Amino acid sequence: MNQFTEDGPNDISVVKFGGTSVKTIARIQHVAEIIEKIAEERKCIAVVSAMGDTTDYLVKLAKMASDSPDKRELDMLLSTGEQISIALLCMVLKDRGVKARSLTANQVGIFTEHVHTRARIVDIQSKRIFNWFEKFDVLVVAGFQGITDDGDITTLGRGGSDTTAVALAASVKAPECDIYTDVDGIYTTDPNKIPGARLLSRITSGEVLEMARLGAQVLHPRSVELAAQYNVKLRVRNTFKPEHKGTLIDTTSGGDMELFRAISGVAVDEDQCSVAIMDVPDQPGIAGKITQALADQNISMDMIMQSVHPTVGVNSMIFTVADADLEQTIKTLDAIKSQINAKEVLADPDCAKVSLVGQGLCGQPWIPALLFSTLGKNSINIKMIASSEMKITVVVSRLKAQTAAKLLHDAFELGTEKPATAKS
Amino acid sequence: MNQFTEDGPNDISVVKFGGTSVKTIARIQHVAEIIEKIAEERKCIAVVSAMGDTTDYLVKLAKMASDSPDKRELDMLLSTGEQISIALLCMVLKDRGVKARSLTANQVGIFTEHVHTRARIVDIQSKRIFNWFEKFDVLVVAGFQGITDDGDITTLGRGGSDTTAVALAASVKAPECDIYTDVDGIYTTDPNKIPGARLLSRITSGEVLEMARLGAQVLHPRSVELAAQYNVKLRVRNTFKPEHKGTLIDTTSGGDMELFRAISGVAVDEDQCSVAIMDVPDQPGIAGKITQALADQNISMDMIMQSVHPTVGVNSMIFTVADADLEQTIKTLDAIKSQINAKEVLADPDCAKVSLVGQGLCGQPWIPALLFSTLGKNSINIKMIASSEMKITVVVSRLKAQTAAKLLHDAFELGTEKPATAKS
Repeated sequence: MNQFTEDGPNDISVVKFGGTSVKTIARIQHVAEIIEKIAEERKCIAVVSAMGDTTDYLVKLAKMASDSPDKRELDMLLSTGEQISIALLCMVLKDRGVKARSLTANQVGIFTEHVHTRARIVDIQSKRIFNWFEKFDVLVVAGFQGITDDGDITTLGRGGSDTTAVALAASVKAPECDIYTDVDGIYTTDPNKIPGARLLSRITSGEVLEMARLGAQVLHPRSVELAAQYNVKLRVRNTFKPEHKGTLIDTTSGGDMELFRAISGVAVDEDQCSVAIMDVPDQPGIAGKITQALADQNISMDMIMQSVHPTVGVNSMIFTVADADLEQTIKTLDAIKSQINAKEVLADPDCAKVSLVGQGLCGQPWIPALLFSTLGKNSINIKMIASSEMKITVVVSRLKAQTAAKLLHDAFELGTEKPATAKS
Repeated sequence: MNQFTEDGPNDISVVKFGGTSVKTIARIQHVAEIIEKIAEERKCIAVVSAMGDTTDYLVKLAKMASDSPDKRELDMLLSTGEQISIALLCMVLKDRGVKARSLTANQVGIFTEHVHTRARIVDIQSKRIFNWFEKFDVLVVAGFQGITDDGDITTLGRGGSDTTAVALAASVKAPECDIYTDVDGIYTTDPNKIPGARLLSRITSGEVLEMARLGAQVLHPRSVELAAQYNVKLRVRNTFKPEHKGTLIDTTSGGDMELFRAISGVAVDEDQCSVAIMDVPDQPGIAGKITQALADQNISMDMIMQSVHPTVGVNSMIFTVADADLEQTIKTLDAIKSQINAKEVLADPDCAKVSLVGQGLCGQPWIPALLFSTLGKNSINIKMIASSEMKITVVVSRLKAQTAAKLLHDAFELGTEKPATAKS
């Protein structure tokens, strides 16, 4: 993002409202009220998503039109959802006497790479934004969408509006970016599914990133990454309780010593599948071919593992992909199967990831011990295990995922202010 | 339109499909079939409207958000309707193997003046179109929308997609522009309301222009004007009977001698009001002030008449406006009433225009005679009368409008191949 260095007012407030926050005209009125209050103190960029189920409705239309809708046209279609929201919100703001202007990604100049349905932002024309702020107090920007340098409409993929908001905050050097949503903030685990889940007043960006990647759907991982990269402080808060402070995501590297907890949360992602490529020759370059073929299809792999059968000189490679990518993954691997001399490609669609996430998880052997003994005692079978500096993930059957999460949330005492430590 | 002189392929087919033609995915499939056939023979520009009632739905949303929605934001909102259509149609075309690309007005470069909700096109980047045709066979263009030179989205007003199609046809010098709709073509009068209405195989642009202005809703008058100005031959035809030729609108000045008819049709516009400004001083400049005040609000007046009361030196001015403009008209006139010393402003909202239209109407005294005697015999009260070279319009009560039209259609024998002449 080479233009993130323009100069302009440095007290701009960047706020983002998700689909449930603008689901109806009444809710849009409520959002306008929040924005009006902010605008009394400083310039404001408000990023909005499509109203309620608009995107789902448009996707349904697309699937009626085509079994596999052309991605460029899908972006052309889906970007209308946010355009509707910004226009309506701006009408309401103007009626309240706020100097507001709605802007599409094209008008702002939110440039992305030439990829459809999941483009990444490469540049934002912050100079245009500063120019508009000479005439307007609130800029209402369509989230989720972008534009290529030759004028094609792109979209940023799932949760893309968060990314738009963070990128704008970075681009105008806003001190904080407030993500208004329909929950109170970030919890130790999903409060809708696991009783005892506790609201965190602060969390590090690393932890929330792991949780987001692992299925905690409050924030899109890319937006958290971007926030960390540009030191944008994110705050997740409830549109319907604007007086509550929500959860602050601290992007300062290292984080606050006071904040230190072994485990911050348990995340569940139920829409996972595992894919195994059996009996590949143990030769250099094979893994590269496989990952490249999938990367060409823009498929993200996770929990990549490889085991060697040294006696016969063949490998097996196993990894997880999202449900939505399974079909394309199988198709892609089948196409290169003979080229890499693989024996067969197997898929297990009954996978869910359950992950323990914590900045202080590393080097604490009591944590995996408590994790595995808890699941073992309750006869929950573990299909795969992976760990990194900040998380331990186990793959279990989808039917067992919520139970496993609940058991771990209890075992690690995450519902209390002072969770379990080695001594407990 | 200064760029209407670019060079490019001269056999481009320009077709336009209205909202009813793309109301459902099934209909979009059907439209794709028509376009595919055209594209087998030549390059094609397909202009589409929003699906079915999408625009009405969006207007409803806007009215829920604001009593008088900001016009810039309304254009931002309404332009999404056409964007949805072009994306879906293009998905279907691509599935059929057609090299197609959807384009917004911004992408095409359909530049308009800086007016919202009823902008006029000032320029089209035909060079961009010719460039796209090097890679694509069909360009699916969003109708109704435009862009200002500083990137604001505008809309062209009611029936604006017709205007988009004609402007594109003029810009690429297409030999013909086919307007696909849900009727067979242009009739002598509204076939849904008056039995005996007859389909015309040809009509002059002057006649259709008068009929369009007078409420025959097949074509937007601006599109006909533009077609006449750039000698674009228009053809109105039925999407659901693509094998039928419909009605050709001959824009050649003078027209075909064989085409000569005294009267081509009867048009009805039921959404009219008359407004009278009573007792204005008989001074130069007053009419100018009134018309300028209304022009500033972009309100079109029609049937402007003035009568003088010579004894007292005061005038009355009366004219008609569309229903939708009545409120704003009254407000505007009330505001300048004291400035022009007018006594009062009166409105009659129960007005409908019934018009006889025909290229051969001029200088044939039997025509007004038959018109007035027919209405008189049937006790239909005439509120206003106006005539021009190609039409005679009477204003009657809305309740009587269809009856009047039916009586005139019969009296002038428009349902027959050889309608009434002076001898009959």
